[in-house]
Amino acid sequence: MTLRETVHEMKRTAPQMAAVTDRDKNRALAAIADALDAHRDEIFAENRTDLALAEENHVKASVIKRLRFDEGKLSACREGLRQLAALPDPVGRVTLCREMDEGLLLKRVTTPIGVIGVIFEARPDALVQIAGLCIKSGNCAVLKGGKETARTNTILFSVIRQAVTDAGLPENCLLQVSAHEEIDELLKLDNDVDLIIPRGSNAFVRHIMENTKIPVMGHADGICHIYVDRDADQDAAVPIILDAKTQYPAACNAVETILVHRAIASEFLPILADALRGAGVSLRGDREVAGLIETDAVFEDAEEYRKEYGDLTLAIKVVGDVNEAIDHINTYGSHHTDAILTRSDEAAARFFSLVDSAGVYRNCSTRFSDGFRYGFGAEVGISTGKLHARGPVGLEGLTSYRYHIEGHGQCVREFAEGTKAFHFRDL
Amino acid sequence: MTLRETVHEMKRTAPQMAAVTDRDKNRALAAIADALDAHRDEIFAENRTDLALAEENHVKASVIKRLRFDEGKLSACREGLRQLAALPDPVGRVTLCREMDEGLLLKRVTTPIGVIGVIFEARPDALVQIAGLCIKSGNCAVLKGGKETARTNTILFSVIRQAVTDAGLPENCLLQVSAHEEIDELLKLDNDVDLIIPRGSNAFVRHIMENTKIPVMGHADGICHIYVDRDADQDAAVPIILDAKTQYPAACNAVETILVHRAIASEFLPILADALRGAGVSLRGDREVAGLIETDAVFEDAEEYRKEYGDLTLAIKVVGDVNEAIDHINTYGSHHTDAILTRSDEAAARFFSLVDSAGVYRNCSTRFSDGFRYGFGAEVGISTGKLHARGPVGLEGLTSYRYHIEGHGQCVREFAEGTKAFHFRDL
Repeated sequence: MTLRETVHEMKRTAPQMAAVTDRDKNRALAAIADALDAHRDEIFAENRTDLALAEENHVKASVIKRLRFDEGKLSACREGLRQLAALPDPVGRVTLCREMDEGLLLKRVTTPIGVIGVIFEARPDALVQIAGLCIKSGNCAVLKGGKETARTNTILFSVIRQAVTDAGLPENCLLQVSAHEEIDELLKLDNDVDLIIPRGSNAFVRHIMENTKIPVMGHADGICHIYVDRDADQDAAVPIILDAKTQYPAACNAVETILVHRAIASEFLPILADALRGAGVSLRGDREVAGLIETDAVFEDAEEYRKEYGDLTLAIKVVGDVNEAIDHINTYGSHHTDAILTRSDEAAARFFSLVDSAGVYRNCSTRFSDGFRYGFGAEVGISTGKLHARGPVGLEGLTSYRYHIEGHGQCVREFAEGTKAFHFRDL
Repeated sequence: MTLRETVHEMKRTAPQMAAVTDRDKNRALAAIADALDAHRDEIFAENRTDLALAEENHVKASVIKRLRFDEGKLSACREGLRQLAALPDPVGRVTLCREMDEGLLLKRVTTPIGVIGVIFEARPDALVQIAGLCIKSGNCAVLKGGKETARTNTILFSVIRQAVTDAGLPENCLLQVSAHEEIDELLKLDNDVDLIIPRGSNAFVRHIMENTKIPVMGHADGICHIYVDRDADQDAAVPIILDAKTQYPAACNAVETILVHRAIASEFLPILADALRGAGVSLRGDREVAGLIETDAVFEDAEEYRKEYGDLTLAIKVVGDVNEAIDHINTYGSHHTDAILTRSDEAAARFFSLVDSAGVYRNCSTRFSDGFRYGFGAEVGISTGKLHARGPVGLEGLTSYRYHIEGHGQCVREFAEGTKAFHFRDL
């Protein structure tokens, strides 16, 4: 079968998958955890081959760390599956129950989305986590992982699929795609794929967004800001900024630009610059910033603030007030996560009401923008779009809903003609 | 200014519009109602010109009825605006409030979407309703109405915009587009327009969906089904089907195909056919149907069931059981609204669990699928997509959300290193 045919079959299976009970889904998750354990040696062996190949290809040590699937990752995966099974069923929740008229009951009930394509980075634990999220939310999923862990992905997928099928879930509820060319094929299947979730580099996500008619949920850029207001607690500001830049610089929620109120810039910036430089951070900014602290690069064009570094580089800019900070963030940011550091409730209120981002924070690190840290149990990605889910996307973001009406022979005519009237009573 | 520049300005205004208080939005809605009343004579005069032109062009009487903007429509519009103002603010609602740790508070707060483009049919009252919905939900809107009411649209829009500006809302929160070519221009503005809502013919909506990178919310087809189960109350089934087909055949929620269980087909179909023919409905179906009742056309190909008539034409098919009915609906339908008529809770449960449509009904007409009838106050359209809003889209469907965190200097490092742990307490 071609990919198109296989995915079309999957689409036909989607309603069956949607109807699987929570008990059966949880049994399948437990079966996956057991099967991963039972096949640990084969999985570790395949992973060692991937790692050896990566080393041969001189892949960076920091990346190789993410490719590894060892005892620790296995046990974290199994614990993640256990936690997922313990979460309430995201499907079948009644989010509206309204009597329209005597004996005419309207309910809004959550449903899976249907067929989801997830394209993710080379991280074997991501495959397990994403498969788990899709199963728990009753979705069929087409999974494409990064090529650097191709062998690990293949064994993991085959173990997972066997476990799921043995546990009685529809046979073709999961599909693995391994060739890179198949991504382009997948992107064309807008009749059968309901949603694409791409994870990876900006360029890759942007490529996906621009080359499919299927709705895409995700984010290309993570250009996060921290604005240090004139009323900020400057002592608290330094560790927050250090955390947001250096705790994991490659993360999309790491800060890329610091905005500082002009009234405190000459006092605060030198202290901040010392701390950042001590942590190995390279600083850059426009001429005004370069006049206050030593910078490694000077911007000649404001467009340079439109950049995601993803490493130990940080842009700095001085602004006149909270309004200029908000305007800069809305113009040069990526609507991901932006924070204000201030003791002023007024400045904070203005920031919260006008910054147009998925996450708007006060007095804490931008790095909190994450499904686990929000208590969602897990996340399938972070969305900077405003439709459907925004911010970290957990189980709830993998659901849709439909309206059910139970009647007793009611017709619209009487309501249209006015001989009957709706009374709308929420139950 | 070009359309691109104007819409870019609007995008910059969107955060201001999002921050307008409910009181100010309601004052603007009241101002619109007053202004429409004050300018009634000019509006009616422009509408008479539109109507005269339509008659000259031999537009059908049924369509001309929709173009008319008279005393009755004006008063309905004013009442609609009053009701909209009385609804709770859809923006700023806290839908999640969770303490992540001591002094670290996460909130999910509803927000407007931003800039919405609405392209709608020639119905002057639709312009007023859509402008009202966008204002109440804090969105900026680009409005493009049908050309047959161009003069009425222009005067209505200018009255509305003046009223809104006088009431203190951001000046460029509303924009009217009148030339048809500007639609294609609008569809290219994916950097500044967050959502397109197209209403109109199937071909038109499909054209929009296929020619923009902006997310589109709406429906192309409305191929709704009613399945008459073997356990249906046959006496109640006839009036329901008559209502669903004849009460307003042009509506997207009118029924297009009746599926009948084989066990009752020879008894029920002749009775149904008599009633439908008495109401002027033309019947068609495959050879099996043609063997049971007189039909005006016989299908040689099942693909013919994939058709929306929108008039007094109805397709009929005999099925073996509820599963075949479900399969037919999921295959040939448009995921809009489908109903089962049955006294069997078991058949109904199966239908509700497996039919993949925005509306799934039991024992009532498909025509209930409508924002007013659901008690949403008004609707901006009906969506058959599964992302964001599904089914009738009211104020809630015009909102997104964002996450706010208020902290006291918290960094991620301590949580990542395990010296601190989240306790997730929902408040």
